[in-house]
Amino acid sequence: MTSSNTLTAGLILIGNELLAGQTHDQNLSYIAKILVDLGIQLKEVVVIADIEEDIIRVVRDHSRRFTYVFTTGGIGPTHDDITAAAIAKAFNRPLVIYPEIMEMFEQKYGTGTPDLTQARLQMATLPQGSLLIPNKVATAPGFQVENVFVMAGVPVIMRSMMESAVTRLEKRRPPVIKSVSCHVTEGKLATGLAKIQTQYPNTEIGSYPHWIDDHPDSLKITIKGHDLSIVEKVTTCIYELCQQFDQDLEVSQG
Amino acid sequence: MTSSNTLTAGLILIGNELLAGQTHDQNLSYIAKILVDLGIQLKEVVVIADIEEDIIRVVRDHSRRFTYVFTTGGIGPTHDDITAAAIAKAFNRPLVIYPEIMEMFEQKYGTGTPDLTQARLQMATLPQGSLLIPNKVATAPGFQVENVFVMAGVPVIMRSMMESAVTRLEKRRPPVIKSVSCHVTEGKLATGLAKIQTQYPNTEIGSYPHWIDDHPDSLKITIKGHDLSIVEKVTTCIYELCQQFDQDLEVSQG
Repeated sequence: MTSSNTLTAGLILIGNELLAGQTHDQNLSYIAKILVDLGIQLKEVVVIADIEEDIIRVVRDHSRRFTYVFTTGGIGPTHDDITAAAIAKAFNRPLVIYPEIMEMFEQKYGTGTPDLTQARLQMATLPQGSLLIPNKVATAPGFQVENVFVMAGVPVIMRSMMESAVTRLEKRRPPVIKSVSCHVTEGKLATGLAKIQTQYPNTEIGSYPHWIDDHPDSLKITIKGHDLSIVEKVTTCIYELCQQFDQDLEVSQG
Repeated sequence: MTSSNTLTAGLILIGNELLAGQTHDQNLSYIAKILVDLGIQLKEVVVIADIEEDIIRVVRDHSRRFTYVFTTGGIGPTHDDITAAAIAKAFNRPLVIYPEIMEMFEQKYGTGTPDLTQARLQMATLPQGSLLIPNKVATAPGFQVENVFVMAGVPVIMRSMMESAVTRLEKRRPPVIKSVSCHVTEGKLATGLAKIQTQYPNTEIGSYPHWIDDHPDSLKITIKGHDLSIVEKVTTCIYELCQQFDQDLEVSQG
């Protein structure tokens, strides 16, 4: 389903805590769902630590390969927040202080102690030419450099930044997604599903078993495509295939 | 904390459903925690779709860069399960049928219909020279090729395969991790934390705010290192720093 007209995206989750299993990521599936609704294909997600050379390498790679890139994490005021500096290096831009961000802090919290000023300065120092990404939760904004949208890692802040970022994205018609849920093991359906997939190559058929309590419990088959009538036809074929093994089927949308 | 003696790992999560936001990943943090306990540093996680060229590219890249690579997803019996074929290509090995896997199916389920035989054949067809990764949940095993451990995506099956895989891994002494939890905004602590980090460069200090109901609620500061007495010293420094702003602190281990 990829054409030259397709919009694609990469997502880079930055943070030692994700790789150490200390924090369970909540951002991937949230951002993925938003992109699906916008008709933008999320092609790859990379999770890396707060290491400058890793951030530079992956950001450059994704920026070159995808229409849009989103990053989360590493834009706070502490010593381990190095994303802004790494992005500046990735695009060979100097870091500059944004006075309007310093003003946002002063307007909200007044003048601070020297320690606070230092922390604010870090969050106000961004790659030259960045477009700010406002949010309604925290004072410090995210920022956009070329096709890269740099956002916070804290989910509630990221979501508000994503809301701002979305207004700047091109959109495409999202795919039609239907699904058939049944209680049949994959092995029994595999040959039949493969035949239907071969017959309708422009429709993407996915098969996802859910195991509960060590037993294959149920199977969800998804049907994704851009032509509603064909997706409906494929869904009917799969429904009829599953009915040979299970009378108690469920078809749902989305 | 990286030396030539360090064991590293990459993790590749394979599946269209993860990139479409249809499935919320449960495997990353589970595998990450196991690797921390084994003293193996998880360096990078990549999430990609069931696309052969993407799997080949990322598997080759991780296999070259890391001591161990783990993959999840795409080893079932349906048409969208293409991981085994892609791994074979990544290592330039032919695909061969493993009669012992066909026997496992027959022993458990007896002889099947032609359709079932076809599905079983797919799961019994692996890159030549693979070492099987048994599991206690499903019949079909995972497999190891060189330093790459190929496992199922369904969490309950993956966990059982991971248990088998772990017995084949070298281990290192895991790092000591302590944490201080307080109710202070990051900005107030940033300068103090940076000073402590500079003073103890072999200890990794991480700062993780939790926002609840749109307000900065609490902050967790983690202290990670290989020398217990230094980690304890750094923890005390951070405890005393936080106490200037919050009397009601909590120190925990791990």
